[in-house]
Amino acid sequence: MRPNRLQQIFAAKQTAIGGWCAIPDSYCAELMGHSGYDTVVVDLQHGPLYLDAAVPMLQALSSTDAVPMARCSANSFGEINKLLDAGAYGIVCPMIDSADDARALVAACRYPPVGTRSFGPTRGFLHGGPDYFAHANDTILVWAMIETPRGLQNLEEICAVPGLDGVFVGPSDLSLALGVSPSPKWRQPPLSDALARVLAAAHRADRLAGIFCVSVEFAIEMRQMGFDFVVHANDASILREAAQAGVAAIRR
Amino acid sequence: MRPNRLQQIFAAKQTAIGGWCAIPDSYCAELMGHSGYDTVVVDLQHGPLYLDAAVPMLQALSSTDAVPMARCSANSFGEINKLLDAGAYGIVCPMIDSADDARALVAACRYPPVGTRSFGPTRGFLHGGPDYFAHANDTILVWAMIETPRGLQNLEEICAVPGLDGVFVGPSDLSLALGVSPSPKWRQPPLSDALARVLAAAHRADRLAGIFCVSVEFAIEMRQMGFDFVVHANDASILREAAQAGVAAIRR
Amino acid sequence: MRPNRLQQIFAAKQTAIGGWCAIPDSYCAELMGHSGYDTVVVDLQHGPLYLDAAVPMLQALSSTDAVPMARCSANSFGEINKLLDAGAYGIVCPMIDSADDARALVAACRYPPVGTRSFGPTRGFLHGGPDYFAHANDTILVWAMIETPRGLQNLEEICAVPGLDGVFVGPSDLSLALGVSPSPKWRQPPLSDALARVLAAAHRADRLAGIFCVSVEFAIEMRQMGFDFVVHANDASILREAAQAGVAAIRR
Amino acid sequence: MRPNRLQQIFAAKQTAIGGWCAIPDSYCAELMGHSGYDTVVVDLQHGPLYLDAAVPMLQALSSTDAVPMARCSANSFGEINKLLDAGAYGIVCPMIDSADDARALVAACRYPPVGTRSFGPTRGFLHGGPDYFAHANDTILVWAMIETPRGLQNLEEICAVPGLDGVFVGPSDLSLALGVSPSPKWRQPPLSDALARVLAAAHRADRLAGIFCVSVEFAIEMRQMGFDFVVHANDASILREAAQAGVAAIRR
Amino acid sequence: MRPNRLQQIFAAKQTAIGGWCAIPDSYCAELMGHSGYDTVVVDLQHGPLYLDAAVPMLQALSSTDAVPMARCSANSFGEINKLLDAGAYGIVCPMIDSADDARALVAACRYPPVGTRSFGPTRGFLHGGPDYFAHANDTILVWAMIETPRGLQNLEEICAVPGLDGVFVGPSDLSLALGVSPSPKWRQPPLSDALARVLAAAHRADRLAGIFCVSVEFAIEMRQMGFDFVVHANDASILREAAQAGVAAIRR
Amino acid sequence: MRPNRLQQIFAAKQTAIGGWCAIPDSYCAELMGHSGYDTVVVDLQHGPLYLDAAVPMLQALSSTDAVPMARCSANSFGEINKLLDAGAYGIVCPMIDSADDARALVAACRYPPVGTRSFGPTRGFLHGGPDYFAHANDTILVWAMIETPRGLQNLEEICAVPGLDGVFVGPSDLSLALGVSPSPKWRQPPLSDALARVLAAAHRADRLAGIFCVSVEFAIEMRQMGFDFVVHANDASILREAAQAGVAAIRR
Repeated sequence: MRPNRLQQIFAAKQTAIGGWCAIPDSYCAELMGHSGYDTVVVDLQHGPLYLDAAVPMLQALSSTDAVPMARCSANSFGEINKLLDAGAYGIVCPMIDSADDARALVAACRYPPVGTRSFGPTRGFLHGGPDYFAHANDTILVWAMIETPRGLQNLEEICAVPGLDGVFVGPSDLSLALGVSPSPKWRQPPLSDALARVLAAAHRADRLAGIFCVSVEFAIEMRQMGFDFVVHANDASILREAAQAGVAAIRR
Repeated sequence: MRPNRLQQIFAAKQTAIGGWCAIPDSYCAELMGHSGYDTVVVDLQHGPLYLDAAVPMLQALSSTDAVPMARCSANSFGEINKLLDAGAYGIVCPMIDSADDARALVAACRYPPVGTRSFGPTRGFLHGGPDYFAHANDTILVWAMIETPRGLQNLEEICAVPGLDGVFVGPSDLSLALGVSPSPKWRQPPLSDALARVLAAAHRADRLAGIFCVSVEFAIEMRQMGFDFVVHANDASILREAAQAGVAAIRR
Repeated sequence: MRPNRLQQIFAAKQTAIGGWCAIPDSYCAELMGHSGYDTVVVDLQHGPLYLDAAVPMLQALSSTDAVPMARCSANSFGEINKLLDAGAYGIVCPMIDSADDARALVAACRYPPVGTRSFGPTRGFLHGGPDYFAHANDTILVWAMIETPRGLQNLEEICAVPGLDGVFVGPSDLSLALGVSPSPKWRQPPLSDALARVLAAAHRADRLAGIFCVSVEFAIEMRQMGFDFVVHANDASILREAAQAGVAAIRR
Repeated sequence: MRPNRLQQIFAAKQTAIGGWCAIPDSYCAELMGHSGYDTVVVDLQHGPLYLDAAVPMLQALSSTDAVPMARCSANSFGEINKLLDAGAYGIVCPMIDSADDARALVAACRYPPVGTRSFGPTRGFLHGGPDYFAHANDTILVWAMIETPRGLQNLEEICAVPGLDGVFVGPSDLSLALGVSPSPKWRQPPLSDALARVLAAAHRADRLAGIFCVSVEFAIEMRQMGFDFVVHANDASILREAAQAGVAAIRR
Repeated sequence: MRPNRLQQIFAAKQTAIGGWCAIPDSYCAELMGHSGYDTVVVDLQHGPLYLDAAVPMLQALSSTDAVPMARCSANSFGEINKLLDAGAYGIVCPMIDSADDARALVAACRYPPVGTRSFGPTRGFLHGGPDYFAHANDTILVWAMIETPRGLQNLEEICAVPGLDGVFVGPSDLSLALGVSPSPKWRQPPLSDALARVLAAAHRADRLAGIFCVSVEFAIEMRQMGFDFVVHANDASILREAAQAGVAAIRR
Repeated sequence: MRPNRLQQIFAAKQTAIGGWCAIPDSYCAELMGHSGYDTVVVDLQHGPLYLDAAVPMLQALSSTDAVPMARCSANSFGEINKLLDAGAYGIVCPMIDSADDARALVAACRYPPVGTRSFGPTRGFLHGGPDYFAHANDTILVWAMIETPRGLQNLEEICAVPGLDGVFVGPSDLSLALGVSPSPKWRQPPLSDALARVLAAAHRADRLAGIFCVSVEFAIEMRQMGFDFVVHANDASILREAAQAGVAAIRR
């Protein structure tokens, strides 16, 4: 089975840098996959795309060096199974509120006897290879998003769930959970404290810690802080900001 | 009929700043349309997209302030008619080599008795309004690309073709036409001379002059040089450069 | 944030007239949006379309005067979040059976602290504007469909759920719930009584009352009866009936 | 090979009534195919759809009683071949100006030795059956559109081209060709005279005469006048008119 | 209503032979439908396709002799309703673990008063006919997949659920449930015993027994063993195996 | 630039074995690319697919070992440019009738000064790499199809055109050109003689000789005969034949 390069990065105690696709197009995903990211996450939650649009995006990523992962729209057994069968090498699941949620997530991502994933990796075989079944449980990364009041409260129990690879912070929702505006102020409490708490809890439980950033600056600081996996921003916002900056410069 | 804002900009002797879509997706086109460009051109020539993909992109642009235009893949009567029927308010046509080419282009863009465009503006009515037919000939912009040895040679005759609104430089192909590398060195001869020549010929013939740039810097200088219409770069290259720069900054 | 014109109509005590899209195509949605309806609802429940097809339809509606809304296929947190992120300004949710169902629906449509909607309005920003977050909770309309035996039984409790804007009758399912054929006989009991009951309960609770009609005649009478929001019929049935009538007239 | 029902209708001296699809969707095409039309024409010229969108539309028509035909966007050998390979049982070709144009059209539609169509009817086999090759030349209908000044001038020569089944009037373009507005005034000269002339020339040359109408009334009168094939209107205009009429009636 | 040919086959005590589509394309589905199968199942569970891709596939099957069925991705009321509305004449539902699961499945497939399916068969009317409602409950086949430890344990209770037409074995997941490799060894215990047990239980309860096979040989033996419905394999594996065999033979 | 593996095969005097895609789907193309073929050709001529459908298919091939090539629908400068920009590493062009046709084909495939290809390899950069321009002219294969009476007549002149890599036989059209049925009888005159003639002429002119076969047997014999490039058959026919054979075996 094609190895998961992210596991090698994490084993080497390096930081993985992620791209994120909200634009529902395979050429755009391929561009992202060729931009130097260690992984590119296809976003089915907030991106205007769902399971039919995600397939050619995951296909396009297979020709790049970026590990294909997906954020599901919900902790749904059927949807997660479909994303893995379509070749995703990792699942980022939003709004994990409890250990039960995390256990259900892990179960959806692992074949029996570890979990209850159904067998039929149609595209998994193409991306991973003919020995997909033998190695899938050890190759696929499972990330639980911590971004709600209950998720924050149950953080330690979530981190303790066997089979979970890491927790992943959604800083906008986490800000809302903390009673502040969704535009993340990562240097100020209460968000700064919460980030530190998630990072510490993850590492204490021997779990990875990841975070979606919304700017290069944010990502740099999260990397320095010790997060194992930092996402730059999504393609839509990167493009829009660069385009707006270009227009402004030309018009000036 | 909804007015063509570009005409107002040109009438005011201002420079129009253009975006360019090579990513075949309507959400991406919509993002571009909301980024501050005066127009966004859907690129059917080099973008990996054709007539079926272009339709939702043109639709998405209709909800933005950017004037929807299209670059056709060839000087094809049928293709140009379809793009106009789909709501494009301007056509940028590649590889115009002669006055005959330019006349054929104009004919495809104008209803009789000016040209030979066939009547049936299915989406033109939606973008333009019920009085589309009465005003289309005066509203739609026709741009002839100057980018081949013959096009450069026949520049003055091309500019003289009635009904043509402007000429538009493709600097990469023009560089190849001049015997140099396609990565445009706009400050150096022979390209710098050719740009000056096109600009002068256009203005002498009372035509607009436009140019596709591949960077903000290039666009700024072309604006300063006097081009009426400068295109920033395409969405694919803007995104890829910004993503690569982000990764590099985070990894550093 | 772009205002929700339906709210202005309801504030003025006028009836909103709705279109309904079951044809999974953005050009068709755009035609519907230009046909004079105050809103057009993209139907993910019975229309042969789902989340990937809905996106360009919602985009197309953004260039028209019709307020874009969507009927979700189920009371699903993930699906409703996606439709709102894709720019819908209202959700019509089928088969609300209880106050708990209605509360879950409201929670999915409202950001914290009112509800639990996750933040990331990718297309919401484009349709609504950069201040989307500040106003979304007050701008988006939430409609609970009353169409099952339990929904009818729990009507008053449903109407009392805070944050719900209105109830909306599905007359075919409601007919089945009442033990009669799904072809709605709106002038006869038991359906006529049920319609009156829903309308009265809604208004008593200071909620709006809406209804899907299957003909112009039905819609006219519902408007006269006092419904705040009447839907003409869906595009598929309007087209098929008009086409069949045309063929019959020509063949005669 | 599945017979072409239109040939039976024409052999019986009856009028064929046609539907016309400009909405690029297969469910919409299927609705049209079930509406009672003898044939449904997928419009690649003015409809916002091209070869990729046309395939599922032609597939959908195969499950209905309507004979699938297509209007190509231009008299293009490659495009016409593709439409036939995709299962179209007839081609309506716009802007036939001369006998040479008509001969090229016929050649594209017929296998050698009659024409030069290339062999490979991928979907033709599915719609037509395994004996497709043996009967295709005799089954597929070829229509030349008469709608330009030159086409009108060369009408008799066009009608005389062997292998052509019929001529087909585009009344809007023909109006423009005659120097009047594209909204066809079929009861008044010069259009009324031109229609009579085309009809007479076609029948004199033992060719069928067809016409695109834009209303039921127009179609009824063309049928009475003797046209063999009358098209009601396209799906987009039928839907929009019915929707607008519905809104107006409900709002009144 | 168009009859369900599978019911005639089962009534005649014959074996139905099924095709299975994992390739998300309507032309491919049409090819499968013309290949001699009695039914073709569109696979939304393991196929890289979901509700938007399934619609044109179901449309394509309507022009063939194969009965269109679908495997849903989960026992989801909304998804099953959508597949039936889109014209499926049968649902194969994965991972039925209990009688409660089976009752929920039946309820989603049947209109009141038998079940709770919502009314609005947009494409059901086109495939089935205008009398769809009157006959749908008696025409649509409901299959519960037996493939988990709990499903096997509760087999008899599942078979006893009223309204269920049959059980259907997923031999790979069932192998995993039995603690062996997912590559089904149908001639060896424990799988052979489990197959015999499912078949016997189904027939004892007067239910049909179906099974997904992964080779012709497997299917032949299951037919001989008495299964009422045997699926050959999916299109993806049939194609890949035939292509690989062809390459090997040519290269040799 | 990523090397063209076919060139290595031809340099080693080995036979390249090709797959061929008529099914317009990227997952199917990816399956074909993983089936052992040295190259897979996306067929825009007879496959029911065009430029928008071809893009994700070419993307999918980039993750496999098969060299992506395309058959254009016609000798069209614009279409050929688009296929190359989309990443095709070779063009198979139908119906080359003369040396002029072949020269036009070569010109469309090569950058100046060799040809007139326009610069803008949007996806070429992704598949080939950043040094695409420097090597494209030497990497891309150009095949002229010999399949018409005139093509056969002008065979030697066609083979002599500089820049052409090979000729490629379309045996069905060639059979028609020879006055026999399109089902190719490759062992019998006149087709057997024509095949020998094309092969000899190609090799005499130091050109490669390729052929589309319609069965494994045909391909084996063409390989033995000395063809450098043999295509097995297309995916649609491979699938349909295997499916039909499976049904027949199970039903027996």
